[in-house]
Amino acid sequence: MAVRVRSPPLFILKMRAAPECIPCAIHFAIRTMRRTGGVKEDVLREIIKKLGDFDLSHPPSYFANLVFDVIREHTGVRDPYKKDKHEQNQWALSVYPELKRMVEEADDPLLCAVKISALGNTIDLGVSGSYEVDLDLNKINLAINDIDIFRERLKTAKRILFIADNAGEIIFDRVLIEELHKPVVVAVKSGPIINDITIEEVEETGINAEFIETGTASLGVELEKVSPEFKKVFYESDVVISKGHANFETLDDADRDIFFLLRAKCEIVAEVLGVRKGDIVFWYSKKQAG
Amino acid sequence: MAVRVRSPPLFILKMRAAPECIPCAIHFAIRTMRRTGGVKEDVLREIIKKLGDFDLSHPPSYFANLVFDVIREHTGVRDPYKKDKHEQNQWALSVYPELKRMVEEADDPLLCAVKISALGNTIDLGVSGSYEVDLDLNKINLAINDIDIFRERLKTAKRILFIADNAGEIIFDRVLIEELHKPVVVAVKSGPIINDITIEEVEETGINAEFIETGTASLGVELEKVSPEFKKVFYESDVVISKGHANFETLDDADRDIFFLLRAKCEIVAEVLGVRKGDIVFWYSKKQAG
Repeated sequence: MAVRVRSPPLFILKMRAAPECIPCAIHFAIRTMRRTGGVKEDVLREIIKKLGDFDLSHPPSYFANLVFDVIREHTGVRDPYKKDKHEQNQWALSVYPELKRMVEEADDPLLCAVKISALGNTIDLGVSGSYEVDLDLNKINLAINDIDIFRERLKTAKRILFIADNAGEIIFDRVLIEELHKPVVVAVKSGPIINDITIEEVEETGINAEFIETGTASLGVELEKVSPEFKKVFYESDVVISKGHANFETLDDADRDIFFLLRAKCEIVAEVLGVRKGDIVFWYSKKQAG
Repeated sequence: MAVRVRSPPLFILKMRAAPECIPCAIHFAIRTMRRTGGVKEDVLREIIKKLGDFDLSHPPSYFANLVFDVIREHTGVRDPYKKDKHEQNQWALSVYPELKRMVEEADDPLLCAVKISALGNTIDLGVSGSYEVDLDLNKINLAINDIDIFRERLKTAKRILFIADNAGEIIFDRVLIEELHKPVVVAVKSGPIINDITIEEVEETGINAEFIETGTASLGVELEKVSPEFKKVFYESDVVISKGHANFETLDDADRDIFFLLRAKCEIVAEVLGVRKGDIVFWYSKKQAG
């Protein structure tokens, strides 16, 4: 098990992109274009030149947003991952009864549900473009595991904000949301961005919770751009759970405490978290003083 | 076992780069810069912008050459992989006695030596930046296996040209070269390019053969740029063995028959060969008519 890292820089530094985020964004551009009728060389050239003006003070998700915008502008395809999202939800719904049974049979149902939600974070077309989901929870170790703090916070929590990530993944989150036995507000994107779940697909997830939109159609949660409604819920909820890479990349320096639940899918995010690529973390990021 | 593909396009088309070769070249740039004192953002920007003018009619190796030239020009470091090359040779020499023993104990020593040479092609810092070498030959299947044609050609061959690839790998090739029991000329690069073996490191390989240089310090063998001396040997040898990706990428449409021995390390090369990524091929490319 990796050692939990809580060195001060994690709390005061906003996550910055690494040089590796640029070629990663170009790979993402190529995969996305293949979903909109093929790679157009002139569009790819434009994307590469824009990325060539990179500023690494942005979080990694910034570059995927830039790529997505250029492709949308040139192809007119608003939602290249629409079909993927639907298929991911359908597949995840087909294993949902099995996931519920795992929780019922678990010695520690809450920890089991956290692991299932974490496992759902494997469903991602943004970072590598392909994924495999192995439903064997015995293979899941939380490299950072703050479940005890989570249990404590849950006791007194009246309202929980769950910031969702991808389609398909959200059915795995549904298992955790149901296991909380508390009023939960689920935040989703206001428009399509990669395979993130949006308000347009929530109906098909069968989740019985209140849904709100972040107010943006970009990756993660950029607090300077979200709607006042989202912001209010964000700051007034007793517990905030943030799923996945991009939400972590954009909220890691937020001025409130957050439980981050994600698989570190690349070296860049793994290094910031002090874990190895592929590790799963359930990390309680404490509100910063000041 | 994959089916051997001999469809006509393989013989008449020069290998072209795919869009994926561009981000791959940028990753390579980042890794190479880390070997020359770190990633300089302005140099990386220049590289990305140059790659943004891509022309996919080049073979993939063209882009790595371009990256290498820019980095060398800006850093003044002539050979960023010097230390890697030395270490790879030292490591390979340490397992050389074991490799020789494998051949001695094999039912089919020539096939065993071909597999060992193929295994050496795993030692590469160009494509992915890291590698693992598993000496278990039972795990090696040749997805394309033209050893019977090779045996036939060897019988009458008076001189064999072996076009080498990487440092370290060449010790594995040494096992094959020694098993040929024929006069062999080994071609190496005239100057440093990634971890390709050059005339500067051949002494430490302990290979008892005639060495010649290609006349260039670029990846692969660009027949329009090589020296007249190399060209003469290339056309006059009875058998030509070409190791690795870049030699394949640049020689696949050459006007003479060649035995290509390589591991397909990326989807792009795998697709051209009609095999899967990771597969090893020993492919006899027959001289084209006309």
